Amino acid sequence: MATTIRKATRAQSKQHNLRLVLKTIYTAGEISRADIARTTHLARATVSTAVAELIDDGLVEEVGQKPSNGGKPATLLSVIDRARCTIGVDLADGEFRGGIVDLRGRVRQQESVRVIEMPGDAALAVIYELIDDLLASATDPVLGIGVGAPGLIDMRNGVICHTVHQDWSGLPMRDLLQKRYELPIYIVNDSHAAALGEYTFGEGIDKSTRNLIVLRVGPGVSAGIVLGGKPYYGDGFGAGEIGHIRVVPGGDLCLCGHTGCLETVVSRRVLLARAQEIARRDPESKLHLFAGAPEDIDRTGIVIRALFAGDEAVRLIVEEMGEHLGWAVANLVGALNVQQIRVAGRMSCFDDALLRPMRQVMHESAHTVLVNDTEITLATLGADIVVQGVAALLLSHEMGLV
Amino acid sequence: MATTIRKATRAQSKQHNLRLVLKTIYTAGEISRADIARTTHLARATVSTAVAELIDDGLVEEVGQKPSNGGKPATLLSVIDRARCTIGVDLADGEFRGGIVDLRGRVRQQESVRVIEMPGDAALAVIYELIDDLLASATDPVLGIGVGAPGLIDMRNGVICHTVHQDWSGLPMRDLLQKRYELPIYIVNDSHAAALGEYTFGEGIDKSTRNLIVLRVGPGVSAGIVLGGKPYYGDGFGAGEIGHIRVVPGGDLCLCGHTGCLETVVSRRVLLARAQEIARRDPESKLHLFAGAPEDIDRTGIVIRALFAGDEAVRLIVEEMGEHLGWAVANLVGALNVQQIRVAGRMSCFDDALLRPMRQVMHESAHTVLVNDTEITLATLGADIVVQGVAALLLSHEMGLV
Repeated sequence: MATTIRKATRAQSKQHNLRLVLKTIYTAGEISRADIARTTHLARATVSTAVAELIDDGLVEEVGQKPSNGGKPATLLSVIDRARCTIGVDLADGEFRGGIVDLRGRVRQQESVRVIEMPGDAALAVIYELIDDLLASATDPVLGIGVGAPGLIDMRNGVICHTVHQDWSGLPMRDLLQKRYELPIYIVNDSHAAALGEYTFGEGIDKSTRNLIVLRVGPGVSAGIVLGGKPYYGDGFGAGEIGHIRVVPGGDLCLCGHTGCLETVVSRRVLLARAQEIARRDPESKLHLFAGAPEDIDRTGIVIRALFAGDEAVRLIVEEMGEHLGWAVANLVGALNVQQIRVAGRMSCFDDALLRPMRQVMHESAHTVLVNDTEITLATLGADIVVQGVAALLLSHEMGLV
Repeated sequence: MATTIRKATRAQSKQHNLRLVLKTIYTAGEISRADIARTTHLARATVSTAVAELIDDGLVEEVGQKPSNGGKPATLLSVIDRARCTIGVDLADGEFRGGIVDLRGRVRQQESVRVIEMPGDAALAVIYELIDDLLASATDPVLGIGVGAPGLIDMRNGVICHTVHQDWSGLPMRDLLQKRYELPIYIVNDSHAAALGEYTFGEGIDKSTRNLIVLRVGPGVSAGIVLGGKPYYGDGFGAGEIGHIRVVPGGDLCLCGHTGCLETVVSRRVLLARAQEIARRDPESKLHLFAGAPEDIDRTGIVIRALFAGDEAVRLIVEEMGEHLGWAVANLVGALNVQQIRVAGRMSCFDDALLRPMRQVMHESAHTVLVNDTEITLATLGADIVVQGVAALLLSHEMGLV
């Protein structure tokens, strides 16, 4: 019995050392065996054994010599970015998006399918097809599949519990995918994934950045929160579900059944409806440049183009949405005192027209000392932020890399 | 050099083992040396050495025999609750409160001073006197002094940066107290302390409780947040500063300089002003039972008594404040999905008259799935919650106990 335990411990410790060495090389970019030993406090021999195994596994390669100041020059090691890949899927309302992501978070291949008002079963078939295609074209070994979905996700059981836009209540997505693909599968809320993606692969994040909020504004509004360098999920995996906070007492009915939710004043649905109204009312509107008839205004991109063409009525809609978002950010800052807020999602393309009123209202709506140190900027990752985020989750859980 | 390092490591590891054994005994209540070894995976001999040292230090005692099923009965060990004490101070607006707290969070002695509109220097003299008195009457060895203060506290440097109610901008409280008392000193935001106190010593918190929000409603409104079993402070130690979130667009001017803050509709100041107005308007008001003239309504306690005497106008004020708080909680729940919300502070004495409208508005104002699993209850610690909270902080940092 004692021997078995000791053996298990030895295997665990070997596994731990392997991961530690791999992570050290990954983080350093290029590093010598001696420097790995110095950084990790592992014995030189342990490092050499681990490196040999990592090279054998095709994860690490020798990339050259470290300039030496006398003595034998040290060989530099580097993680092979394409040694493994992950399949990331973003089940956004309106468009399912998939990608093959390398170990540095780069999207090597991307595919997307427009999905409008599709019943749950048909949508599931689309997801299978998307993943089938990506797997078929993946040339590097696949670590696993990650799926980011809107709504409440039970990560522990891999179940999509509740989404406002799809009829997927209680869908055991992880089991379904695991059965079909026999690979590690992770299901996560899309905003949580986005925040982790930006935190892991985004620009301007350094070691001193422990906390980050990514506000996603697109079909709806929600926030992903990284605290202490880790995604914060909440007791029921529902942290950041701010789209259904009441902001307009006695306001419009929301899809969720309540009235006056943030999403009744900031969402793609509302944006398109208001843009259509402008187009109907004003024959001079720039919207007509990008859509034949008012009812053809069915994508955020059309409204974005009208804004940049100088449409004043569109600018006012965007400004109003920015004001609501600024107030939502004030609430997040009051609760969490997180100083870096980044905006992602399709509507982040409105750029300053959205961010300027956000900043202004945030400043008026929370404690001066808190907001003075808070920055609202655009996320540095683009449309693949969720795909890259689920990749980060896989790299973290499957390889301990990030 | 190598020897020095090894020695340091050995001393550290001894210190680590001592703390581990002490914490194990503290958590278990009563436990045998053999069970400590089983729990900690330390060698029996290491445990025995550590226990001997802890007994020598007067921290641990033998308290009896464990019933044996054959063989020599094992001796049970327990931490002596009064082996050490901490001095906790709560610098609430209106009343400074101090206490001597034992290792189980019990307040062994308590003292308080009413402090109304006192300049900063005089207030500091009152604090010194309060601590002098408590130290003079402490019979157990004092671990250190903890101070909970409203406003923004730079915990790293022990500085009170900013309070709305006192003119203490940039007061280096820790240095002042360290110089005077030569003891470990901790300065922390009072609501952060309250949350840690309730989490550590409150009832109904078990191992599965990782997250907790304590909402304090008294002179102002703020929240203390425990996430993953640890106090969450925020990037600038300002987490939970929700009293200055704008809730009434175009509302009244707040002490902070903004308009329509939560504290312009929920605070002691507003409560007293509105109660005085009722008393002036209505000669039948129950308030007259507890205050000679309307302007004598200068304590929350008078309004609480009028409520419980059945004053309907007072009930409506409290209900309205509860509604505002319910909405504030909805925002916290939307951001953090923390399922246990506890209400503390003087106004928590309004009990159901405050909590019922809070619950109702919370349910209408955030995502149904989130709020359905969220409970708003009264904090189980009473008026000493901050004093007990700073004691918990000391036990955590100085002894690794909680």
